[in-house]
Amino acid sequence: MLFNRPRAAAIMREQGLDALLASTLQNIFYLSGFWNENFAIVPRTTQAYAVVVRDELDVPSVVAGVGDANAVLTSCPPQTLATFFGSFFRYESPNVRLEAPERRVIDRITGPEVRPNGLEALVAALKQRGLTRGVIGYDERGLGEKATSALRSQFPQVEFRPAEAIFLRIRAVKTDEEVRRLQGAVVATEAAVRAAMAIAQPGVTESEMIREFEKTIVVEGGRPFFTQIHFGRRGAMGAQPIANGVLRRGDIIRFDVGCVYQGYCSDIARNFSLGDPGERLRRLHAATVVAEDEALKVLRPGAKASQVFNAGVEAARAAGIVDYNRHHIGHAVGLDVYEMPILSANDHTLIEEGMTFEVETPYYELGSAGLQPEDTVLVTRREPRLLTTLPRELVVIE
Amino acid sequence: MLFNRPRAAAIMREQGLDALLASTLQNIFYLSGFWNENFAIVPRTTQAYAVVVRDELDVPSVVAGVGDANAVLTSCPPQTLATFFGSFFRYESPNVRLEAPERRVIDRITGPEVRPNGLEALVAALKQRGLTRGVIGYDERGLGEKATSALRSQFPQVEFRPAEAIFLRIRAVKTDEEVRRLQGAVVATEAAVRAAMAIAQPGVTESEMIREFEKTIVVEGGRPFFTQIHFGRRGAMGAQPIANGVLRRGDIIRFDVGCVYQGYCSDIARNFSLGDPGERLRRLHAATVVAEDEALKVLRPGAKASQVFNAGVEAARAAGIVDYNRHHIGHAVGLDVYEMPILSANDHTLIEEGMTFEVETPYYELGSAGLQPEDTVLVTRREPRLLTTLPRELVVIE
Repeated sequence: MLFNRPRAAAIMREQGLDALLASTLQNIFYLSGFWNENFAIVPRTTQAYAVVVRDELDVPSVVAGVGDANAVLTSCPPQTLATFFGSFFRYESPNVRLEAPERRVIDRITGPEVRPNGLEALVAALKQRGLTRGVIGYDERGLGEKATSALRSQFPQVEFRPAEAIFLRIRAVKTDEEVRRLQGAVVATEAAVRAAMAIAQPGVTESEMIREFEKTIVVEGGRPFFTQIHFGRRGAMGAQPIANGVLRRGDIIRFDVGCVYQGYCSDIARNFSLGDPGERLRRLHAATVVAEDEALKVLRPGAKASQVFNAGVEAARAAGIVDYNRHHIGHAVGLDVYEMPILSANDHTLIEEGMTFEVETPYYELGSAGLQPEDTVLVTRREPRLLTTLPRELVVIE
Repeated sequence: MLFNRPRAAAIMREQGLDALLASTLQNIFYLSGFWNENFAIVPRTTQAYAVVVRDELDVPSVVAGVGDANAVLTSCPPQTLATFFGSFFRYESPNVRLEAPERRVIDRITGPEVRPNGLEALVAALKQRGLTRGVIGYDERGLGEKATSALRSQFPQVEFRPAEAIFLRIRAVKTDEEVRRLQGAVVATEAAVRAAMAIAQPGVTESEMIREFEKTIVVEGGRPFFTQIHFGRRGAMGAQPIANGVLRRGDIIRFDVGCVYQGYCSDIARNFSLGDPGERLRRLHAATVVAEDEALKVLRPGAKASQVFNAGVEAARAAGIVDYNRHHIGHAVGLDVYEMPILSANDHTLIEEGMTFEVETPYYELGSAGLQPEDTVLVTRREPRLLTTLPRELVVIE
């Protein structure tokens, strides 16, 4: 179970929401288990929805194109109420008796209950759940002005309320299954860091290490997402679209990398040094690790996100980076790389047990290097549990 | 050069557009060369823009967060006018003389010309180009209601006109550099098909072949995007979120796969058979290839997309799939997998030299297999040039 139903029920009650209507890849997946890759492949025209009702959160309604009938029927729980729309040409073998899953697909993509378009299918799905009055929260990034107007005129007694922030608030506390997947993303990413470091020697290019990294992500069952591997001074500059840096002795290597594993993201940073980078950079790197450590100590249930931020920034200054500053020192992570809360000066969200974060205290010094520890952590009652296992200190290789 | 400037100038003149304003990853990249990965990593908050003026199409204006200054300065042409916004903490080494690219970054991320936010930066960029009157076409998928209202009140004498379709029309005819990248995507994809087939033997799973495929995409310099590899009857069902099919003798393997290579997409399909699939399926597969061939014969400058569609569907019927039908038998391809035109009954767009398509004539038969040839082609004055090289007929392996 990805969907944190007890939390959803509590937040929906608090907010007076009778139902949630998801219309983005991530929120549909979260509520129902249906991963609709068409949102990536055909973004301009893909439509799909998932709806849950507060008193019956374990029964998602899913609305999808008939082309995706099999994906819905095989990846959502059996009690799911599916409504399909449009048409898709699949034929039936004249010689073979269909098996149950095939029969289901052919039965569901033809017949009068298939709706002509996504909006009519959504209307039918809402009516099927008795949602003709009450308050429905929808994620406004996936449902435009036109669709919401149409819904409002179809359902004059329903209040449709933008609820992207509510979705994120529910998603902020992870279920065990979500933590398992985040752990999988970390395992893949760390294996890939090790594989890339295995070819680190003078003369290797950033591109070569990036390919080694991404190959390993695939082998570990992940999908490459973003892979920033920079050498030396290039690591202080930000994204380098042309990865043509060549590794030289004395360079600090910066990894800021992530993948997607069973829908869940990682975003991890590490530094290695090819030979001694000198006392000053060693000291600065140690200060970023101390800063991260101090932030982690504060990252406990009941603290505010902003307190974690302040602890990290103050620790970096105390440890010797006297003018250290950042906009944030981390962010929640899950189906998106950047979820809420953000560990920043202005985010006063209370930290809760079961939240997962990427905590990072980077220091980018032009002319020197990009120093950056970043770790995936799970908030527990006591100290946060690090899902990452690679050493956080600056590892010097020869 | 990705951006087809002569075509853009002609279409802008025809449409009465003085400037184009891009606000999505693909359109910004197309106009300026700036690939902003933050649109994928931080989709909720990332803002960036590119603007071109009709009489000076080789001078893009780019608006980006200061964190991306280096990416903009290193990947856009030198005459680019860049406007940055926000703030980002980068420091300067006390011991090292900065090199020119580092100096540029530090100079551009501080100082009075840095704007507080994306909208103010965009306003400044438009003013810098003298765009205080006239008609500006913008891609409405990346620029919401709120931003456009703000722009309209800042520029009362400018008409801001939704122009996503215009962007797609300009992008429909590819430049040589775009064709080179599409070719690169095909090369990577075909190498990956071969690598996956190299491990095809009884007992292999779909997952195993998918990993082999995606590893090879990475090695070839691409980014895995969608990888549908299905065995036997599973190939007729559509997307299979759980790739647990096991290859057995007599199965037809269906590849429907694509990657992204230097920003450009591939979408190729092929069938292989482990042992003889029987006369009937061989004949049906041959009919899909004939249908594709007939569609390709019509895919020439001056034809309508709908004529190509009709030719393919009629040929499939004549070749023995008597009730063959489809919603489309292909689509333009480029920075997006699905671009315009679509080879469908209702798209009457005239085919032009330099357009690139994925042409496909799939036949999905539940209980049997998914039969699908799909090829990347470039429209020329004569026959379209196939960028794909793998044999299109059903290859039987033992």
